[in-house]
Amino acid sequence: MVSVERGVTISLDLRARLSDLYCTYDNALNDGTLELWPELFTDPCVYKVIPRENYEQDLPVAVIWCESRDMLIDRVVAVRETALYAPRVVRRITSGICVRSAGEDWLGLTASFALFQTMLDQPSRLFLCGKYQDRVVDDAGALRFTERVCIYDSTIVPASLVYPV
Amino acid sequence: MVSVERGVTISLDLRARLSDLYCTYDNALNDGTLELWPELFTDPCVYKVIPRENYEQDLPVAVIWCESRDMLIDRVVAVRETALYAPRVVRRITSGICVRSAGEDWLGLTASFALFQTMLDQPSRLFLCGKYQDRVVDDAGALRFTERVCIYDSTIVPASLVYPV
Amino acid sequence: MVSVERGVTISLDLRARLSDLYCTYDNALNDGTLELWPELFTDPCVYKVIPRENYEQDLPVAVIWCESRDMLIDRVVAVRETALYAPRVVRRITSGICVRSAGEDWLGLTASFALFQTMLDQPSRLFLCGKYQDRVVDDAGALRFTERVCIYDSTIVPASLVYPV
Repeated sequence: MVSVERGVTISLDLRARLSDLYCTYDNALNDGTLELWPELFTDPCVYKVIPRENYEQDLPVAVIWCESRDMLIDRVVAVRETALYAPRVVRRITSGICVRSAGEDWLGLTASFALFQTMLDQPSRLFLCGKYQDRVVDDAGALRFTERVCIYDSTIVPASLVYPV
Repeated sequence: MVSVERGVTISLDLRARLSDLYCTYDNALNDGTLELWPELFTDPCVYKVIPRENYEQDLPVAVIWCESRDMLIDRVVAVRETALYAPRVVRRITSGICVRSAGEDWLGLTASFALFQTMLDQPSRLFLCGKYQDRVVDDAGALRFTERVCIYDSTIVPASLVYPV
Repeated sequence: MVSVERGVTISLDLRARLSDLYCTYDNALNDGTLELWPELFTDPCVYKVIPRENYEQDLPVAVIWCESRDMLIDRVVAVRETALYAPRVVRRITSGICVRSAGEDWLGLTASFALFQTMLDQPSRLFLCGKYQDRVVDDAGALRFTERVCIYDSTIVPASLVYPV
C-alpha cells in the first residue's frame, strides 16, 4: 500500500496506481528487463544515485546523474554492450512508499530500498540501502517519474554499481 | 499493496484479498505455525524451492519439490518430528507483490523475498533472497496457491534449508 | 497494503489509515525526525524492545521499556543531548503489516521489520530483525499505538541500540 503523510489526501485508486508504478520499476530491474526502465521516466527527467553525505550537504557529486530519457537509455546500452563486470543478480526490496507532498500536477514521494547482490557461487549479500526521493507526474495518462533521487546511506562509493538503483 | 502490471485490471477488493493471502503465508512461517502452511495451497499443487541458475536453464533439480498437500504436510511433519537441526528463527520480508498475468480462473503473480536467519547466540544474517513465481486460484471461496516456485538468487545450495521458503 | 487474518474484516479506508500510521512511524525514524515519534503513541502507552527469547518465556527484561509519552520524549532527549555514540544511520524495512485481532475499540496487529545500520565509512549492515506486536486505537480521530512491542529475533543484546526500533 502506498501511504500518505498527514495533510495529504489522495484516492484509493491513485494509491493503487502509484503502487503499480513502483512495482513496475522494481520488476523491470529485478527481472533484468532493463530496456523497460527508461520508459518509467518523463523526458526530460532527473535520475541520480548519490551518497547521503553529499545529498545532505548539497554537494553535487553523484555516482549516476541522468537528465533525459536518452541518458537513461545510454546507461542501459552501456550495461548491455560496453561495460565489463562480473555477472551478478541484484534483488530490490522497497518499503514505506509514501506521498509526502502534492502540487497542482505532481506528487512528492519517498520510499526505502534495500538491494541485495548475489555474485556467482557466493551467498547473497546486502549491497546498498537508502531512500528514494521522487517526484511523480501524470504523463499523458501514465504515471512516470519526473525525478528519482536514490540516496544511499553509506558514505563509501559502492565498488561497482552496474545496474540502476 | 498488491500491484498489477499494465494491461491487467483487478478490483481493489481482489488486491486486498491477495494481500491477505500473501500475509497469511508469511505469518504462518514467521510465527512458526507451520501446520497452517499446507492449507494455503490447493490439492494438487506445485511447491518448489529452486536456485535461479537451474530455473533459468530449465534444469529440474530443486531443493524442495512438492506436488500435493500431503507432500507439504509431510514436510511439516519432518521438520517437527524427524529432522535434526540447530534451533533457528527465519524472518521473511516480502516486497513487490504483483499480478503479472490473468487467466479465466487464475492469476499469475511474482514477489521478491528476503529471508533473515538467526541462530542461537548469533546475530541475524541474510539467509536467502529471491523471487516467488506464483499461480493463485479461488478455491471454493478462498484464495490459494496452486503453484509457488521460490527461485533464490544464489547458485549455491543453502547449507541447511529447514523451514519452507 | 495492510492485510487482515481470516475472520477479521475492516474497510479499505481503515486499511489505508493503518498503512499511513505505520509509514509515518517509519518516516519519523528514517528521516531522523525523532521528535515526531512520541506523538504516534497514546498516553499512557507501552513501548518495549525485547529479545524474542525473553518475550516467549515471559521474562520481563527488555532493552527499552516505556510506559508513557513522557518516557518516550525522555528517550528522544537522551539521544539528542546526553547519549554518546558514533554517528550512524538506521534504515528500516517493514513488511507484512497484518490485523490479527479486533476488539471493540482497538486493533491488534503484527508486522516484520529489518533494520540496516550504516556507520561512518562502512558498508550498510543488517542490524536487527524481528516482529512488531502492536495495539492500535483511534485516539480522538488519529490512529495511535497504545502498545508497540518490538521483539527482535536474536538472543544477544545489540551492542548499541541508539535509536528506537
